[in-house]
Amino acid sequence: MRQQRQFEIERRLRDIVGERVFVDVAERVSYGYDGSFGQYLPDFVTQPLATSEVQQIVKLANVYDLPIYPRGAGTNLSGGSLPVNGGIVLDFSQWNDEVTIYPDDLIIKTRPGVKTADIHALAEQHQLMYPPDPSSSSVCTIGGNLAENAGGPHGVKYGVTKDYVIGLEVVTAQGDIIRTGGNTIKNVTGYDLTKLLVGAEGTLGIITEATLRLIPKPQATQTALIVFDDLGSAGRSISQILTSGVRPSKMEILDHHAINKVVDYAGIDLPREAAAVLLVEVDGDEAILPKELETIKAALAKIGVTQVKIAASKSEEAALWQVRKAVSPAVVERGFTKISEDATVPLSQIPHMFEKIDEIKQKYDLNLVVFGHAGDGNLHPTISANMRDPEAVKNVENAVAEIFNYAIELGGTLSGEHGIGMMKKPFMTREFDAASLAFQKAIKDALDPNHRLNPGKIFPAAGETKLVLSHDD
Amino acid sequence: MRQQRQFEIERRLRDIVGERVFVDVAERVSYGYDGSFGQYLPDFVTQPLATSEVQQIVKLANVYDLPIYPRGAGTNLSGGSLPVNGGIVLDFSQWNDEVTIYPDDLIIKTRPGVKTADIHALAEQHQLMYPPDPSSSSVCTIGGNLAENAGGPHGVKYGVTKDYVIGLEVVTAQGDIIRTGGNTIKNVTGYDLTKLLVGAEGTLGIITEATLRLIPKPQATQTALIVFDDLGSAGRSISQILTSGVRPSKMEILDHHAINKVVDYAGIDLPREAAAVLLVEVDGDEAILPKELETIKAALAKIGVTQVKIAASKSEEAALWQVRKAVSPAVVERGFTKISEDATVPLSQIPHMFEKIDEIKQKYDLNLVVFGHAGDGNLHPTISANMRDPEAVKNVENAVAEIFNYAIELGGTLSGEHGIGMMKKPFMTREFDAASLAFQKAIKDALDPNHRLNPGKIFPAAGETKLVLSHDD
Repeated sequence: MRQQRQFEIERRLRDIVGERVFVDVAERVSYGYDGSFGQYLPDFVTQPLATSEVQQIVKLANVYDLPIYPRGAGTNLSGGSLPVNGGIVLDFSQWNDEVTIYPDDLIIKTRPGVKTADIHALAEQHQLMYPPDPSSSSVCTIGGNLAENAGGPHGVKYGVTKDYVIGLEVVTAQGDIIRTGGNTIKNVTGYDLTKLLVGAEGTLGIITEATLRLIPKPQATQTALIVFDDLGSAGRSISQILTSGVRPSKMEILDHHAINKVVDYAGIDLPREAAAVLLVEVDGDEAILPKELETIKAALAKIGVTQVKIAASKSEEAALWQVRKAVSPAVVERGFTKISEDATVPLSQIPHMFEKIDEIKQKYDLNLVVFGHAGDGNLHPTISANMRDPEAVKNVENAVAEIFNYAIELGGTLSGEHGIGMMKKPFMTREFDAASLAFQKAIKDALDPNHRLNPGKIFPAAGETKLVLSHDD
Repeated sequence: MRQQRQFEIERRLRDIVGERVFVDVAERVSYGYDGSFGQYLPDFVTQPLATSEVQQIVKLANVYDLPIYPRGAGTNLSGGSLPVNGGIVLDFSQWNDEVTIYPDDLIIKTRPGVKTADIHALAEQHQLMYPPDPSSSSVCTIGGNLAENAGGPHGVKYGVTKDYVIGLEVVTAQGDIIRTGGNTIKNVTGYDLTKLLVGAEGTLGIITEATLRLIPKPQATQTALIVFDDLGSAGRSISQILTSGVRPSKMEILDHHAINKVVDYAGIDLPREAAAVLLVEVDGDEAILPKELETIKAALAKIGVTQVKIAASKSEEAALWQVRKAVSPAVVERGFTKISEDATVPLSQIPHMFEKIDEIKQKYDLNLVVFGHAGDGNLHPTISANMRDPEAVKNVENAVAEIFNYAIELGGTLSGEHGIGMMKKPFMTREFDAASLAFQKAIKDALDPNHRLNPGKIFPAAGETKLVLSHDD
């Protein structure tokens, strides 16, 4: 009976998308994981290439009461794309070539499967810039960025994905095609569904087209590396820089342990005893950049921070950025799993967060480094652990929970740019009281009453208050 | 009976806010209008000074089934604050002194009644900037800015109110106090209720506190005035400037008629035959600004635009900005009413919009000028008319309808920064199809099922498709 129903659904999916339906376990299994944890088996995988196909699939899912999971490149770090309740995965990665730039309007219209890197390149061909730059840009899709409201180092000056989305085409849970926003930067016509849907992790509607605004591309960049002997100085320096009159385009920080990993891994010449290093990029007219970095240097000298190295050439600048680029590979260990977090705190609390994370590292004897986007308090505590060792798993679970709790205690948030997905939903009740969470749920229930769209994400199940990384699925 | 009910409500309101309740017609009448059209009489006016007071008033309104209208300084141009169905006005203008800056976190926490100008000043004391700058800044409240998602000239580089709100405290329609967002710029924890509520015109919740992010204050500004012989050149120049590698902080345009009004009113020396003038401000390091304006001048020379005057001093810069400042008073005529619109179009369509508006001006023989924020397509067609003359009213109604329709036809939107309120709701069905509007309404119905919060705004009544400016209320 169940078998017959499956065949029937398969046949009807093939009526919609032809050969772009996968039902073999060997094929489906590769759509069951993402960049986080866990493995789940969807019942069907389809690769829609048109809004009308998405619409028909959603209507079919309503007929057969199946969950739907939109999916990009699966680089997600919070489990947002995991098909946790079976059902249909909509793999958008093949809908990757419909992207058009309107240079005179400073906008791009794109389908969800287009790679973020392709959007960057297209904008740059016209001396324009699409600023959001998640570190997965070269492989991730814009659809995934839209679902998770992806960030990146540019956030401190240019904001995140949401800040560049001015209009959407969306297929609703009922299978209607709707439009939100439009083609203009300023738009206050009706509710801002665009900014509600971007970052909603595919739980309120399926984005089938986005209109992105572009900005003039800065002519050049220049970078300084600042070394700190203690975390207090590092913390004070962040505010000092941001009130110096210069507006950095990137501010990336590495803690003591990250520095040592980078020295070990890439042989980069950094003082092993440093408490932290900060990379500060400025962008704009080439002639002014050295002066801007000197302004920052002078502001830092006022608070006793003097170890400032300004890149004197493009190659020196590239060498400085190797420090940041090497962190992620430097943390990887053979056979171990990397757990990337993104707890985010108010700027003034960054030193406290670093200290607390160091305590947690000691307490659970973890291979843990911290780096991240200092200009917006968005830190990435990153753990490398043997997740086949139950003891190690327990330690990671406890450490991550303590990190989240402390971030909230400091006035911060669970997630700056990775999303809630599966990984962080047990902690939602620590950040939001019952009424605040009920307000969010009311929106979900109104727009997707049957919880058909990416179910099992964002909202914790009743009583779910603990992170569990190990399971047997 | 009705009388007794009124006394009872008044007494219970006084239990909540003491003397800050107004019931006399003479007092209530001044809360019945705003910067748009129409006069409505609320039943009660209260001036809450605490979130708990707002909460209790909302609960009382639920008991007596009364509508609630949050109100700031009443400068609103779309009728968003009009108490169209009677009920209770919450006048926040007295809750104007609770505002705190956290300079190390680059944030301000403010109550709704604080003047936008006070927030500007507080940020600047710390070398920081709160960029949104609606032209009513000196008198309007931040609460009104939040409700309407106010914009201003800074939009082209710095965005609008919403782009600077990272957290809210809100009283819901049910009288719950909830929190959205937090204290960090990057935040993807749950749905983005902050950006949904900002710009929702007080129809989804009552904002009682906002956390605003600040940015480093640019050190200086410099300005150029560009004169155009034809609208085509003006249009091409906007894209040309925005792709020159320089990012202007303001780009304000005046059409031929606005130029002549300004010459007549303020005696400013501008060529009366010009098709348009554009003011372009750049901001940042003082040393680079002349170079940036030269870059713009060179880019414009390439497309044959050569009438570029660069301010050589601060006083020359101030004189150039007098051109823009004089427009609004120049349009005012004794005994006439000023109708300010803000239809917004994609950048490349600005010249077409100017041409169409000129046609409409001729067709209805109107005193109509156009100025606005060229860098984001946000135009302000502004009419001065004798609204006691039924013929004139009819002409204005028809002209405004044609302007809206053409903006939508060009891929633009009804409102860039003024909001929908009463004035533009008849046109919502032209911009949104039924499914898109139903999606918006579903959110309203879920969060405020009894339509208690600022009823009669944004959504048109069934069959309401025509602007009516004259009425006898």
